Amino acid sequence: MARLTRAESQARTRELLLATARRLFLRDGYHATSLEKVAETAGFSKGAVYSNFGTKDELCQTVIESVRAEQVRAIMDAFLGEGSDEDRLAVFEAWAERTIGDPGWTLLEAEFAIHATRRDPGLRDQVAVSGRSWVSALQLLLENEASRREVALPLPAAELADALLSLGVGLGLRRAVDPAVSPRALTDMIRLLLAR
Amino acid sequence: MARLTRAESQARTRELLLATARRLFLRDGYHATSLEKVAETAGFSKGAVYSNFGTKDELCQTVIESVRAEQVRAIMDAFLGEGSDEDRLAVFEAWAERTIGDPGWTLLEAEFAIHATRRDPGLRDQVAVSGRSWVSALQLLLENEASRREVALPLPAAELADALLSLGVGLGLRRAVDPAVSPRALTDMIRLLLAR
Repeated sequence: MARLTRAESQARTRELLLATARRLFLRDGYHATSLEKVAETAGFSKGAVYSNFGTKDELCQTVIESVRAEQVRAIMDAFLGEGSDEDRLAVFEAWAERTIGDPGWTLLEAEFAIHATRRDPGLRDQVAVSGRSWVSALQLLLENEASRREVALPLPAAELADALLSLGVGLGLRRAVDPAVSPRALTDMIRLLLAR
Repeated sequence: MARLTRAESQARTRELLLATARRLFLRDGYHATSLEKVAETAGFSKGAVYSNFGTKDELCQTVIESVRAEQVRAIMDAFLGEGSDEDRLAVFEAWAERTIGDPGWTLLEAEFAIHATRRDPGLRDQVAVSGRSWVSALQLLLENEASRREVALPLPAAELADALLSLGVGLGLRRAVDPAVSPRALTDMIRLLLAR
């Protein structure tokens, strides 16, 4: 096998560290995961983690962003896919059933947001800004869905997007604690808002 | 001044400890508050805290329940009060503006729920059950409000109550992180669900 170039080797190290960090953060949460543990589990030095990710907060943010990117794509795929209105909502509902309140993702997001809010005003601002970017994405999806269905939304799309994000966040946290909580509330609310 | 009886003195101790615990838990959060600190701040021995509240988790639960009892009363007062539909919603909206996302209460609830979910299945069940009791209370309020307005709810009251609780929880967490998040989403959604 050809030897990796220096750049390839660096990229490979980063990738392995990130995969390990993702597994540990999702399994054990923000507080119980340390840069030392990530380095040790991945078989690298602590220095390798520092030089790639700087701080535990930066590493955790990178992990959260990679999980979110996948989930945003899944939501987009559901709503922008083929099929009838109900077909597409069914794809979204299946995603919600699998994903909303998944303890790994949900608790990590909540722990990180609480940590930032309590300890680090700069980080808190970043968490706030990323929340607003979800609202913008949901607003576009809602507007697209309303125009596809040729319906008028009962409130401005930005406000409904804001409400749906809160509903999703709250549903996730409640379901992570209590698996008996059903994610149907979210799809039924979407159905109601988009009704003809 | 007459000496307190033994029972009066015990009740007074419990009251002082609880008031101190409430202040510290709301100010510093679940993790940063210890039974030692509560005892020291209130001017009692650690034994006094143990004999009154058993564990930090029991003490924190008692604090959370006392805050919730006040907030449930405020919500009830808003919806069951006098005045037109919009007057009553305005009272609720003012409560939401003051209370939803209040960092002290919101972050404490979230930290405690996450702690229970991660560390203690029995405690997690208790948190889950108390969540369900909020849904039941909201269901009664919604049914009462719908009958007062002589409107039919667009979905079963239990399901709408479940959605509104999630919306409130998510809104609270988002607003605790980002004060720019408006609590209007909640009242606008209630307005929409109760529209004639």
